[in-house]
Amino acid sequence: MAALTGRIETAEIVAVGSELLTAHRIDTNSLYLTGALNALGIVVAIKHVVGDRPAALRAVLQEAVSRADVVITTGGLGPTDDDLTREVVAETLGLALHGVPEILEIITQRFARRGARMPEVNRRQARVIDGARWLPNTHGTAPGQIVTSGNRLVILLPGPPSELEPMFEASVAPVLAARAGGRRLRRRVLKTTGRSESQVEELAQPVYAPLVDETPPIETTILASPGLVELHLSCSGDDEATLDAALDRAIGRLTDALGDAVFSSDGRAIEDIVGALLVERGWRVAAAESCTGGQVLQRLTDVPGSSAWVLGGVVAYDNAVKVEILGVPDRVIATDGAVSDQVALAMADGVRSCTGAEIGIGVTGIAGPGGGSPEKPVGTVFVAVTSAARRDVRQFLFPGTRAMVRTFSAAAALDMVRRHLQG
Amino acid sequence: MAALTGRIETAEIVAVGSELLTAHRIDTNSLYLTGALNALGIVVAIKHVVGDRPAALRAVLQEAVSRADVVITTGGLGPTDDDLTREVVAETLGLALHGVPEILEIITQRFARRGARMPEVNRRQARVIDGARWLPNTHGTAPGQIVTSGNRLVILLPGPPSELEPMFEASVAPVLAARAGGRRLRRRVLKTTGRSESQVEELAQPVYAPLVDETPPIETTILASPGLVELHLSCSGDDEATLDAALDRAIGRLTDALGDAVFSSDGRAIEDIVGALLVERGWRVAAAESCTGGQVLQRLTDVPGSSAWVLGGVVAYDNAVKVEILGVPDRVIATDGAVSDQVALAMADGVRSCTGAEIGIGVTGIAGPGGGSPEKPVGTVFVAVTSAARRDVRQFLFPGTRAMVRTFSAAAALDMVRRHLQG
Repeated sequence: MAALTGRIETAEIVAVGSELLTAHRIDTNSLYLTGALNALGIVVAIKHVVGDRPAALRAVLQEAVSRADVVITTGGLGPTDDDLTREVVAETLGLALHGVPEILEIITQRFARRGARMPEVNRRQARVIDGARWLPNTHGTAPGQIVTSGNRLVILLPGPPSELEPMFEASVAPVLAARAGGRRLRRRVLKTTGRSESQVEELAQPVYAPLVDETPPIETTILASPGLVELHLSCSGDDEATLDAALDRAIGRLTDALGDAVFSSDGRAIEDIVGALLVERGWRVAAAESCTGGQVLQRLTDVPGSSAWVLGGVVAYDNAVKVEILGVPDRVIATDGAVSDQVALAMADGVRSCTGAEIGIGVTGIAGPGGGSPEKPVGTVFVAVTSAARRDVRQFLFPGTRAMVRTFSAAAALDMVRRHLQG
Repeated sequence: MAALTGRIETAEIVAVGSELLTAHRIDTNSLYLTGALNALGIVVAIKHVVGDRPAALRAVLQEAVSRADVVITTGGLGPTDDDLTREVVAETLGLALHGVPEILEIITQRFARRGARMPEVNRRQARVIDGARWLPNTHGTAPGQIVTSGNRLVILLPGPPSELEPMFEASVAPVLAARAGGRRLRRRVLKTTGRSESQVEELAQPVYAPLVDETPPIETTILASPGLVELHLSCSGDDEATLDAALDRAIGRLTDALGDAVFSSDGRAIEDIVGALLVERGWRVAAAESCTGGQVLQRLTDVPGSSAWVLGGVVAYDNAVKVEILGVPDRVIATDGAVSDQVALAMADGVRSCTGAEIGIGVTGIAGPGGGSPEKPVGTVFVAVTSAARRDVRQFLFPGTRAMVRTFSAAAALDMVRRHLQG
């Protein structure tokens, strides 16, 4: 490969594949690549998705190569006629392709190991652009390629994430790191719950707005989803220690401003935090869920090793289940209604006693679309968290669809457990 | 607006916003727009994502306008300096902007209704490109715009899906439909479960491969996710009846080839199908879940109105819960192990008797990453479905991560309920 010169600062990603232009498929490779490139201090300036049409791919590639320091294509390296990335990149750069016996041998053996003969079509995957370095594919047949064009790099990667990601780490990251000029980009994520995006914005904006003018400048993005508002901080420079110190200061100031709405600044999800707090105390949790239908327990058991601190629980969708398994008194349901603070408390107490958990969760509400009333409209949810020491219950009115109400409710329940355990 | 001429066949989508170039955000608007454009017979040729940089946006817009019949931008219509789509589109098309008092009035009143004064910055949102038609925003402050440039259309839409989608349906779809020349694209989705992508491919390929050469030609895409393999069929033409007839024929042939792996060809999810089958029989379902941690119940209760046929169930993560609430005999766990066909059956029977459900589900397995053994490696899952009439139990060995094993297991349980109910 020609000697590499010139600093790499900007990248464009070109995802190839008609399936990525349907209403059903998203280009997830670009998320991985963006994170990996940012970590090297390389900014992704533009992302493109093109179908299996030579003309469109040629047009996009020409433009990308004329703008960005590095252009990364994903997909279109398969053995079929649709897979035209190799040919179109070569043509766009005015280069030819040649067959590489070594690759052909590797592919042939790959098939042989599975007792199969290599189909003739796979020969195409052994074709490499003149002057390119080819990148071994440890998880598939299509090798990647790195081509230099003047000061620019064009990198061809396979489409399947299981092939792309190890190839990027093993063969691409080192090449880019050497040319990214040691510039590093560092990130921190501050996770909050229990406040809306605009509430978080109102408290955080006065703190993060000035950060962009400090040295090193820190950029902040707010990302919100039901029950979770994240602040993503990033700054880039040459000295990692300086960057980390600046980010630590910023995280500290933001945490002061946001108070106990902040539950993590190290990337952990709320269920991880809850798990850690339970392990600390040697407590086990159980949940009784109505409107969330099992989402609280599912999120808790998403955590590997959660069997050490989750006993399980009851999904009491039907009132009879609330009464017979959880021992919620009939008359409480009759007087207060199944969606009430008293029933939520009785569910939390009930699931503790029938499982032997030290801390119990009770969730009952109206997720909709039906079942609402003027007194208790859709979105009305009661969450109770009880232990021998304390019994907490809160009423919520969540906005949005059935799915959103359920997600908000599960997030609220997990946060109430966190607050209960933190005293 | 200038008179519209020329047929619209191809579109490019340009999503604007630096947050879409992070490793965390995906451009979901393009999925909605692709579906909506396809329904009008318009093909999306290329999708782009650009940040809040005038130069990059200008470059991408110039190229897109030179290629596509219609270019749709999303985002960058807000009130701040970052929001530069209006200005850059105008500049790219060589047009000026002018303030529209009517829009200003609407925005002012929108703030007034919330008892607020319109911030000065929002004046920018009342600026419209010369010759453009502006599109009212019923869910936000930023109006959309439709500009004609020769035979091409450039359409500016706001970024929030809650604003973009109603605006597209009310103001954009009619304009495009009038120029899409009556050409229509029709789709069908065949959903299967219980077979791997390659198994489905092997059975379906001989059937769908020739379809692309028939008239009208039908294109087929296979989409796979854990426990679900979908065949997406689409064909386009002028006569909807002809297209629908062709798709019905194709669906029929594929269903014959794939047999009872097919559970839906009308878009319904497996939990919808299970719900409909339960309503038919007047049965209620309950589930006892170990490794799935509540995912089966959560998926069942995702369905609006599921309270009519889901009683609830028990998440028996801890063995004591299996014994005490579900009545799984101690000795069965001792002799066969908690992950065994006998325990799965006892869980299904137990949850039926403690809830009174006519059909019960029992799931026990090893989701990993820990807990595996040579006899029962990670991914080993037993699913039982029992009713008074019949007791089914199956052993599975699912590949992949903890999350994948859990998702595979829930899908398998729902499919076993479907098969049990279908006799």
